[in-house]
Parts: sequence; structure tokens; C-alpha cells
Amino acid sequence: MARRQTPLRVIPLGGLDGIGKNMTVFEYGDDMVLVDAGLMFPDDEQLGIDLVLPDYTYVLENEDKLRGIIITHGHEDHTGALPYLLMDLTRKVPIFSSRLTLGFIQGKLDEHRIKNPKFKEVKDGSHITLGAFQIDFFSMTHSIPASLGVFMRTPAGTVMHTGDFKLDQTPIDGVRPDYSAINRFATDGIDLLLSDSTNATRPGFTPSEAAVGPSLRHIIKNAPGRVFVASFSSHIHRLQQVCDASVAVGRKVVVTGRSMITNTKVARELGYLKIADENIVDAYDVEKLPDEKIVVLCTGSQGEPLSALARMANGEHRSLSITADDTVIISATPVPGNEKSVQGIINSLSKIGCTVFDKSQTLVHVSGHGSQEELKLMLAMTHPRNFMPVHGEAVHLRAHARLAREVGIPESNIFLMDNGDTLELSGGKARIGAPVDSGVVYVDGLSVTDADPVVLRDRQKLSQDGIVTVVATVSRRGHKVGDVEISMRGVSFANDDALVSDAQDVVRGQVAKVSDDNYAIETLRKSIRNGLSNFLWNRTHTRPMVITVVMEV
Amino acid sequence: MARRQTPLRVIPLGGLDGIGKNMTVFEYGDDMVLVDAGLMFPDDEQLGIDLVLPDYTYVLENEDKLRGIIITHGHEDHTGALPYLLMDLTRKVPIFSSRLTLGFIQGKLDEHRIKNPKFKEVKDGSHITLGAFQIDFFSMTHSIPASLGVFMRTPAGTVMHTGDFKLDQTPIDGVRPDYSAINRFATDGIDLLLSDSTNATRPGFTPSEAAVGPSLRHIIKNAPGRVFVASFSSHIHRLQQVCDASVAVGRKVVVTGRSMITNTKVARELGYLKIADENIVDAYDVEKLPDEKIVVLCTGSQGEPLSALARMANGEHRSLSITADDTVIISATPVPGNEKSVQGIINSLSKIGCTVFDKSQTLVHVSGHGSQEELKLMLAMTHPRNFMPVHGEAVHLRAHARLAREVGIPESNIFLMDNGDTLELSGGKARIGAPVDSGVVYVDGLSVTDADPVVLRDRQKLSQDGIVTVVATVSRRGHKVGDVEISMRGVSFANDDALVSDAQDVVRGQVAKVSDDNYAIETLRKSIRNGLSNFLWNRTHTRPMVITVVMEV
Repeated sequence: MARRQTPLRVIPLGGLDGIGKNMTVFEYGDDMVLVDAGLMFPDDEQLGIDLVLPDYTYVLENEDKLRGIIITHGHEDHTGALPYLLMDLTRKVPIFSSRLTLGFIQGKLDEHRIKNPKFKEVKDGSHITLGAFQIDFFSMTHSIPASLGVFMRTPAGTVMHTGDFKLDQTPIDGVRPDYSAINRFATDGIDLLLSDSTNATRPGFTPSEAAVGPSLRHIIKNAPGRVFVASFSSHIHRLQQVCDASVAVGRKVVVTGRSMITNTKVARELGYLKIADENIVDAYDVEKLPDEKIVVLCTGSQGEPLSALARMANGEHRSLSITADDTVIISATPVPGNEKSVQGIINSLSKIGCTVFDKSQTLVHVSGHGSQEELKLMLAMTHPRNFMPVHGEAVHLRAHARLAREVGIPESNIFLMDNGDTLELSGGKARIGAPVDSGVVYVDGLSVTDADPVVLRDRQKLSQDGIVTVVATVSRRGHKVGDVEISMRGVSFANDDALVSDAQDVVRGQVAKVSDDNYAIETLRKSIRNGLSNFLWNRTHTRPMVITVVMEV
Repeated sequence: MARRQTPLRVIPLGGLDGIGKNMTVFEYGDDMVLVDAGLMFPDDEQLGIDLVLPDYTYVLENEDKLRGIIITHGHEDHTGALPYLLMDLTRKVPIFSSRLTLGFIQGKLDEHRIKNPKFKEVKDGSHITLGAFQIDFFSMTHSIPASLGVFMRTPAGTVMHTGDFKLDQTPIDGVRPDYSAINRFATDGIDLLLSDSTNATRPGFTPSEAAVGPSLRHIIKNAPGRVFVASFSSHIHRLQQVCDASVAVGRKVVVTGRSMITNTKVARELGYLKIADENIVDAYDVEKLPDEKIVVLCTGSQGEPLSALARMANGEHRSLSITADDTVIISATPVPGNEKSVQGIINSLSKIGCTVFDKSQTLVHVSGHGSQEELKLMLAMTHPRNFMPVHGEAVHLRAHARLAREVGIPESNIFLMDNGDTLELSGGKARIGAPVDSGVVYVDGLSVTDADPVVLRDRQKLSQDGIVTVVATVSRRGHKVGDVEISMRGVSFANDDALVSDAQDVVRGQVAKVSDDNYAIETLRKSIRNGLSNFLWNRTHTRPMVITVVMEV
């Protein structure tokens, strides 16, 4: 009987239920490599949650195997969980990524006071060995410079992970996808491809980042007053185009917004963003220049209420304001869920009377993710034996699977996975293995805990109908009631004195109802709560949370 | 000295700060006419609010002048405040609208148990007199049948209100905009035009409703299994096209979802939706038919969590389920703010594996509002002396004003108003008059009250960080502390016993600190609250609301 070969196990811990918290485990025998460690921003349902992380229990349980962490690029959905993971690991694990990505990560680790991370810079063409893994890095184009794809060889097979990508033939920094490396790996044979699914429902080819240049230049050149450009602060190619257009027409660039200041600083220091010092002006010095000599690069392209753009639009920025003669370019697209916030800012700007350009009227933004033709091209170039669409919501993963079938990958070799599922690769064949612990972890203040649905349900209820707290003092033997105090928060009837007084009577009535014989403080508490809840429903048709405290005196 | 002529006052009470709660007062001397009485659905910030109404205090204060209420069409942003307004009025005021609109309104009034409203049916060509107002109605095309525009003559001048409209030359029911009436009024002279601004930022011409027919027919004809079509339940033209396509290929139509059942019933009874009884099947009888003979018309096009489509997508519908062989058409566009909910449903459907069509891939939806070319055409046909863009957010009203300038209306004759502003018209001239009370009113359970920002701020805070209630009993003279009870809801550390115990110590410490000399229960309460808040911030980096009750025993 043939002894079963050790398989290469591929385990996505995040990234398969939305755009966010990307993290994939690659495990062969006693060696484990992690690709990406991202976070997700909470949605409207996750009330009061600061950040959402993938549950990486499996990584911690196998910490002794972990040979290295690879980060494909510097977006937070690929790097944001790293500070938490590093704090949870008991030893320093090397982190491999490009210079810019490591620069961005350094800033995040500094905020968390994580000292001396073990950074290992890699780039297009780098080759490293991590236990049984032979790993090659290759350039990819995306909406952040220095993005890398990864090719891994193990005794059980080979895997390519594209990272996030588009196929941009005219990238701003001249660094094209390394087609020659991709095709070399393909010639060697790719047993499994993991590829970015973000735009798998979008037909055609995503335009080059260079396509937005002419619109930006045109607007900046012809604007009568100041020009404000809101964009993602990590989108260095976009910022470079804005800087170039500004300098070309003799305008100085002002940078405002915390992450915009931090990221442009890092990118300039590391040589990724090129603009001479004399063309950068401090926000406090801006009044010395005429308006038509100024371009302001700012945060706020997602309508974030505390961002520089929001504060300027609402007249709350310390040093900068927007007037009717100014022009605002929103050089981004709203992330799903942010549409209404962005529209709110556009309304505020409209009231000021300034001219607003967004992607609905002008080509001031293009996506950083490849569309269907690029995804099919990647599949055709790599002709993998097996395929796992990653980085997307259910609809995108399934659309990507359809594209794979179109280019000839057999249905049985396409794996639609969930977070925590494992794919076992061996001898060119892939099969689903036993799943591992997975899920999400919430960061809520200092607490980093398993998602607790009770807390969120309580917050949901509190946010809808508010809370009523009733404190009743009773005599030791039960039904003699003393003071009844009622406080309310977030209820629509807080100022209705008659109602409050009636509610106190209801509480006294409930206490009186409980006889000496079967007196128990818990029974009393519950009957007060139920009596008060029913009273409030009948009188107000709302169901606030009712907290009852019974004090025996 | 010439006696100043009585002006016609035009007062928008809603509709100028978003798509919703449309309501405009027209007042001449002792006569007042109200056009539309709509509601708005709360946004994410308006936590726990059921509905948002315009503050119509001004109407109630002048109730004796109110000669009639005109409703242009049956959408809730034009009719939804009517039940509340009618309950607040002390006498029956006649309501003028088309047969279908009155049918939809009847349903709403029944829900609120409002008996015997004074309905007056009008239609294209109807003429009525309300005090000093001579009023003509004319047909308009919109995403609901029987929409009307209004032309009013008063001694002080004439006004046209377009209502919501697009200019559809091939409407499904054959009822075109009454261009001949519009041009006749224009020839007589229009002193003021109020026109729909919803799509004022959209270039071109909105396609005819008929344009979606071929796509719907193609999909319904070629689908292998059941076809589910989610749309607005009041979009009778759309439903008609789905019914026609279904019947043409021998499919029966199943209607599900509360408002879809109600609205199709009303529209069929009144002759607006035409489908024979034998082509309608009850949801419970659907299993008797083969899948390829079924089309399901359902609610849920906005991703509403309790809608028929959401329940079917999540396997929670009583009688209908969706399988991988089925096809779902989302024949609508998400209202701003609903994008993520709709995407959630599409993801659920993708997991089922069914085929999903939405407007991103196929022409299965067109807007009901006219784009820039239609708005300019309306301005050109009516060539009003003065113009007030209505029905839109700030950005739309301002874009519409720009279109008006383009077609030659002088800047000084274009009025960008806010809710509550008044425009006084007299002798062909318009000027801004004194504003009236305006704003919004929240419906929250049974309470219909002025928007209370404190309640919403409290709910916001509760939803973010939860609440901690502390009850401390103290002896009458102050600092002898008895029991300390702490309850928490919606906090991330509720299960941290050590923290709770330390918190109790903090409370005891605060009580001990207050000396007998300056003892006051309020001081004690505040110092407990502050001490506990600081403790919780230091230990958890969250700021729950802290409710402190001090009971003297």
C-alpha cells in the first residue's frame, strides 16, 4: 500500500466573505507560511466595533511551524491585523515584503509600540527559502506601488498567489507586472492559482492608472482658485499624478489629513513619491500664496466624518477652508457602504458653491483591480491545474469561477472555499480537507475578543429603543416597597412626567403582587421588568431595554 | 402710494434636503393649498426612528385657510405624511388626486384607521377652484401610473409644479405627458416653475420605461427554472411588463411580499394592472406547477431584511424557495444607503448558485426621473419667469439651477430655497419672504415629536459603547456605603469578573472620599460617575454611558 504523501495545505482564514481581512495559511509538514494579515472595517451592523480581524487561532496553535509572514502590499486589508498577530506570537517571526510596504507597516507597528520587528525586504525576482517552501516574488500592478505576487514550490506541489492586481501596461512608476516571471512559473507548472476576484463581475479591462492623468491635469490647469484632491492616502501613483500636474502648472502642494501626511512622508523618504521640497507647502503657510497657486491633497474620499475634506467642507478645519471659487476632485470611488457619506460631503460642497468633480462626470478615478478580461488573461497565462478564487464577496468568487470555466479549467478543479476551509494539494491534485477554527475577532477599545453576538444584539436594541433603568428598594421580607427610581436614556418619552409617574406605580404594583410566601428577589426582579416592559409597549409602542435592580434594605 | 398687492406665497416644507418628505404650501390671502404630504425613511444616523415627517406646524396654524390637499402621485415620499396630517387637522380637508393614487392612499389611511376621507378624484384635464386658486391637472410620466402635474392661477400670478417626472414618449399605459396642456399654460404665462431635480446631475435623456421590456422578456423566456423579479411594488408599469412577458411565454405569476400583494390588488381592481385571474397563482399552489411555468413578483429590491426576496434568499420564506436552477432579476436600483443591503442579498443568492440579473449587467431597470436633457426641455417648453428647483439634495438643486441658467433663465430669477423659506410672487416678480417654522418630526413608536437630538445622541452613544448602571446604597448621613450593584449591557467586558469587582471598589472609594461636611447626594452621584468613567477608560479604552443611582437607606 502506497504511503500517502504529505500534502500542501492551503487555508484561507479571511478574504472569502468580503473585501477585507485577507490572510492565507500555507502549510507543508512542519513548515507554515502566512500570506497577508489584514483587517476589515466594521459594517453598520457591527455597532461600536473598532476593527474586525480574522480569527487566527490556527496560526497561534501552530506557531512553532510558522517560518515567515509575507505581505503582498501595503493596504490595511492586507496588513492591518499584523500588529495584533505580532503581539500574540511569542517569538519574532520574519516579515517579508517590499520596501514601501514595510515602511507603511513600520508606521502601524510604531502606533502599537511594537519594537524591532524582523523585517526582510524582498522585491521582484527575490527568492527565499522558508523550511520546505521555495518562494519567488514577482511584481504586480495595483493601486499602491511595490505590490508583489508570490510563487511557492513545495515537495507536494506549487502555488501562485497573485495578490491584488490589475494588469497595467503603463503604470505610473514604470513597474509592470512581471509577465516573464509569471510565464516562467507557468512553464514549470502551477498546481494551484489563488487570484484576486474583486472585479470579477466587471466586463472588459480596467483602464490604466495613467488614464486619469489627463483629467487631473486638465482640471488642475484650468481651475480658477484652489484645487482640493481627496484620494486614498496610500494611492501613491495617484498622488504622484496630482503632484506632477500641480508642479507642471506652477502650483504648490499642501498635504492635509493625518494618514495623508504620514503616508506621503514615508513614500517620499523611500523614493516612491517624487516631489521637490520647494513644491510642498505647509497648511499654515497657505495664506501667503494666491489661490490659483495651490493644490491641496487631502483625506476624506470616503466621506469619513472626521477627515480633512469633511472638516473643510463643514468649515471646521483649523487652517484650510473651501470657497465658491475652489474646485474639489474626489479621486476615488466609495467603498460599498460609504456611498451616502460621500454624497453628504458632495452636498456640503454644493452648498458652498464650489465645483466638484467625481468619477460620475470625469475620469478622475480608475479601479486598482483587474476586470474580467484581465482575470481571464491571468488564468490563460498561468493555466493552473487547480484554481481558488480569493479576495471577494460570494458573488465575486462565483463570477471568477465562471471565468475560469470559460477559459477551460474543469469544474472539478475549481474550489469555492469558505474561510477556514482547507485545500490539500498533492501530486497535482487538490481536495478539500478538514476545516480549521476560523471566524472573526472584534477589536473594541482595548478588548480583542471573539465576536460576541450578545453584545452586538444589546447595542442594536439600545440604539433602537433606548434603555430604562429601574431601581426599587424593598424591605428584607419582600413586598414592602421603598423608593422607586427610574432613569431613561435614548427613549422618546423621557420628558413625559405623567408616564414616568405611572411607570413608578406599575413597579410598586408589581412589588405588591408578590406575596411573602414565594418571595425571591429574582422573581421580583423579573416581574418588575415584565410589568414595566408591557406598560411601556402599551403606552409608547416601543420596547426599550429594561434593567431592574432590586435592593433589599 | 400704491397699496402692495397680496402676493402668492410658495413655501416648501420638505423635499429640499433630500429625496423625501415632499410638501409645498401655496398661499394666497386667506386661501391655502398643499401639494403633496410625503415622508422620508430614516437614515443610519436617525437611530431607532421609524419615519421622518416634515414639520407641518405652519399648515396646522393656518388650518382655517386650507382649501385642499393635492397629491401628485402615489409614492410614499409624496403621500406618507398624509395619515399624520389628517389626524392633526380638526376638520376634513378634501384630497385631490388620481384614482390610483387615491387607491394607494386609501390603503395607508385604513392602516391608521382613518375613516371617510374626503377624496376628490381628478385626472388629466381636470379643473378645480379652491378659494382664489384656479387649478388645472395634467398627465406626467413617472415610475408609477397616474402621475399628475399641477398648474395654478391666482390673482398674484401663476405657478406650475411638475411633480416627479420623466418625459416618456412610449409609456407602458400609453399615457404621455400632456405636452399640449403644458404648452397652453406656457403660452398663458408661467410666473414660477417648480421642477423635479432628482436626476439633474445625469447627462442625456432617461430611457423610456419600455426599454426594459426586451431584457425582461428575453430573461423570462430563456430561464430554465423559476424566475423571481424583485421590484418596487408601486411600479405598476414594471409589474405590467413582467406580467405580459410571463403570460406571453405561458408562465403563471405568483405575487409575494406584503406591499406587492396589496399594491397589485389595488392596481388590478382599479384597472391599472392588467392580468387575467387564471394567470395569477397563489404562493401555496406553486408546487403544483413545473418550475419553468412560474414567475414570482416579489418585494425586496432594496435589500430589506424582512422582504420576500431576503427571506427566500435566506431560506426563511414560508412557501417559496430559490434553487440553483432559478433566475433572479433585481429590477430596481438601490436607493442611496441601501447599496450594501442589496449586495448582501446578491451574495446570498450567489451562494445558492442561481443566476442573478441586475442593472449592472442588463437593462432591467430605468429611472423614473428625467435627466438633464428632459429638465432643460421642460424649462424650454415652459419658459417660466422664475424657477425653483425642488425634489433633491443640495447637489441636485444646484445642478438644476445651472441647467436653468443654460437655457437662459436669469440668475436673479432662480431661487435655491431651503425648507421653510418662502417665495413671494406678485406681478410676475418673485422675492424671498420671511421664513416659517420648519424642520422634521420623528415618528418613534406612538410618539410623533419634534426631532430631539439628545435622544439620538444617547442612542448613538449606547450603540457604540453600551451602558453601565451602578446602584449604590449609602447611609443617610452619606459616606457609609452598603451594596454596590453594577449591571452592564452592550459592553465588551461584561464577562470580565475581575474588572467588575475592581469597578465596585472604585465606587466604594468614591463614596468614602466624600466627606460628611459637604455631602450632597448629587455630588456623590457625579463623583461616582466620573470615577467609574475614568476607571473604565483606563482599563478598556471605551466610554460606556454610566448611569448612577444612589439610594439613601
